[in-house]
Amino acid sequence: MTTNLSVSKSTVSDAHLRHLPVLEVPERLLLGPGPSNADPAVVAAMNRQPIGHLDPAYLALMDEVQELLRYAWQTNNQMTYPVPGTGSAAMEATLANVIEPGDRVLVGVNGYFGNRLVDMAGRYGADVSTIHRPWGEAFSLAEIREALETHRPTLLALVHAETSTGVKQPMEGIGALCREFNCLLVIDTVTSLGGVPIFLDEWQVDLAYSCSQKGLSCPPGMSPFTMGPRALDKLDSRKTKVANWYLDASLLRKYWGSDRSYHHTAPVNMTYAIREALRLVAEEGLEVRWQRHQATAEKLWAGLAEMGLACHVDKAYRLPTLTTVKVPNGVDAKAVTRLLLNEHNIEIGGGLGDLAGQVWRIGLMGSNSQSDRVDTLLAALGQVLKQVG
Amino acid sequence: MTTNLSVSKSTVSDAHLRHLPVLEVPERLLLGPGPSNADPAVVAAMNRQPIGHLDPAYLALMDEVQELLRYAWQTNNQMTYPVPGTGSAAMEATLANVIEPGDRVLVGVNGYFGNRLVDMAGRYGADVSTIHRPWGEAFSLAEIREALETHRPTLLALVHAETSTGVKQPMEGIGALCREFNCLLVIDTVTSLGGVPIFLDEWQVDLAYSCSQKGLSCPPGMSPFTMGPRALDKLDSRKTKVANWYLDASLLRKYWGSDRSYHHTAPVNMTYAIREALRLVAEEGLEVRWQRHQATAEKLWAGLAEMGLACHVDKAYRLPTLTTVKVPNGVDAKAVTRLLLNEHNIEIGGGLGDLAGQVWRIGLMGSNSQSDRVDTLLAALGQVLKQVG
Repeated sequence: MTTNLSVSKSTVSDAHLRHLPVLEVPERLLLGPGPSNADPAVVAAMNRQPIGHLDPAYLALMDEVQELLRYAWQTNNQMTYPVPGTGSAAMEATLANVIEPGDRVLVGVNGYFGNRLVDMAGRYGADVSTIHRPWGEAFSLAEIREALETHRPTLLALVHAETSTGVKQPMEGIGALCREFNCLLVIDTVTSLGGVPIFLDEWQVDLAYSCSQKGLSCPPGMSPFTMGPRALDKLDSRKTKVANWYLDASLLRKYWGSDRSYHHTAPVNMTYAIREALRLVAEEGLEVRWQRHQATAEKLWAGLAEMGLACHVDKAYRLPTLTTVKVPNGVDAKAVTRLLLNEHNIEIGGGLGDLAGQVWRIGLMGSNSQSDRVDTLLAALGQVLKQVG
Repeated sequence: MTTNLSVSKSTVSDAHLRHLPVLEVPERLLLGPGPSNADPAVVAAMNRQPIGHLDPAYLALMDEVQELLRYAWQTNNQMTYPVPGTGSAAMEATLANVIEPGDRVLVGVNGYFGNRLVDMAGRYGADVSTIHRPWGEAFSLAEIREALETHRPTLLALVHAETSTGVKQPMEGIGALCREFNCLLVIDTVTSLGGVPIFLDEWQVDLAYSCSQKGLSCPPGMSPFTMGPRALDKLDSRKTKVANWYLDASLLRKYWGSDRSYHHTAPVNMTYAIREALRLVAEEGLEVRWQRHQATAEKLWAGLAEMGLACHVDKAYRLPTLTTVKVPNGVDAKAVTRLLLNEHNIEIGGGLGDLAGQVWRIGLMGSNSQSDRVDTLLAALGQVLKQVG
């Protein structure tokens, strides 16, 4: 349509105009702490036109996602849905909804994400206490009991799967302790959901969050969140509004629940993706999927040992989804990750925080948890170590 | 790989297990307030494997997105990037970063999204005042001056394009007033970016937000945000941390800026989409794109008039992207939208808030702003009105 309409009196500046070619993206094998490669069926699901966020077809999709997420987490929580953001948004959602200014919050810090919980909780006005373990270790039930006795928090936050260290926190008994001390329990399952056994209700967990781009094998952008009845009681008895509009569960409940009230315009194509990702989890079955992750990880660990490389975490607490490998003395850790990326198109992660420069982080998650990926990685790593050695 | 590994002592419950077919989504023509249909090249861009959020190829993509977004908004602001959430997250980001408890905030309320700004600003501890116009009208420069004199706010929030009413707020002179009163100016461009002339720097706007799923013709899930030097000064002189970790621009600046520090795992495939969407905006050119939106809207308005339907907003303040149409007396507004969806696969919106039941909302945005879409809609609407009439 040609037109002579003058739509503005001002003149458009071309200072930031760029004429770019069609998007090209390198093909990587993503074996770092995440994102992992998505299942091809999941990325293909995004290649569809969006539909409206109040379309009956979309509302039906929301129900499917909620139900499949309950299965993946092993929970009956009504309030189980993905928040419209990445994993950090889901983390913030758990804290924002149940913390009021002055509430005492206890955080177990044994890695980077424990520290993030401390930072976030403080922003919501919590009086934050911490317990610490070295990066690479887990907390014992005895030290958690002692800390609950000392600090008497209203909320205990623990990281089930520390993405920075590769540690799996044993959960048996912690939920019962929290009930004894009348305290809510929130756990980080970012690197465990879909890859590591989780029994949220059996563990008496009140709030949890995760992400899409690891054990679920979906691109990042929409992140699982759940809250149980005790957390809901705390939400309902708040004296102040949730200090975060976007993540306010009392508003989101009306959209995800039977009211279907408009809250935000949902990330529709991300919903397509996470629905497909969760469908594939259900199709495989949790038990089989967890066994697959464990078997693939054990193959990696054996292969690393054969190469003379040591794991940072004791096997009893080692995540199958994410392995921290000690950087041998004299080896330039960054040179290795750079060569793997540039010459082999393989991404692995470096160390974060206390472990910077000391470990590599290798993720085998979702559809990347396969024997042939281990072979590919070990072969490439062997070559690169010879180059830098 | 078969294995006999026992990975858990507990038994998986199948209570929420569902075996679902592969995702099917109806094909809709999305002519409501948003989401609009995405450009086919944009949804196709999502059908790629993610890459890492610190991959050099991803960092290059971030630079492209920032630069193209500066062009689309006509701003030189260094801090111009999409936040990892939907439009409401970008809205909240503008307020969260520059409001400290006790700050006086003035909001112009002439529709649903003005009220949302009030709600959000209150959650960040602002002392909020409001000025009002009926839903369907705009503010005059004189009443804005008077309100600034009365309330002496540190921040004025206005909606450039009210998605609930279809009103375009004239911006000439408002930025200068805000400088005179030493107050920051934030505007909502959710329904204007990519479809309606915007000259952020010329207008002396300090903060703005938008979405991806309207004038940019991209699926929802990643949302443009920008802040200029005066807003950055306010951020840098805060006495308190930003009360929202996920949207904290002082942290995001280090990721989007030259530091490239890890903050969150970016929504990688949404970044592919918005990069392609912005590339297409640049390819078409802003002036041509704005003219296209204006011409398509004028065709709609003429067609509606021929059918005896009236627009709710005076032509001088009418958005080309979103038209509110008065529901004729005796017509069941919801029956019309339902029939359009179910029998014609066309989505238009109903009225929100003060306009519930009184108007329909018709969006012609991005790749849907085309003459043939107008023909399709008018034909279907004519049929449906006969059915319900």
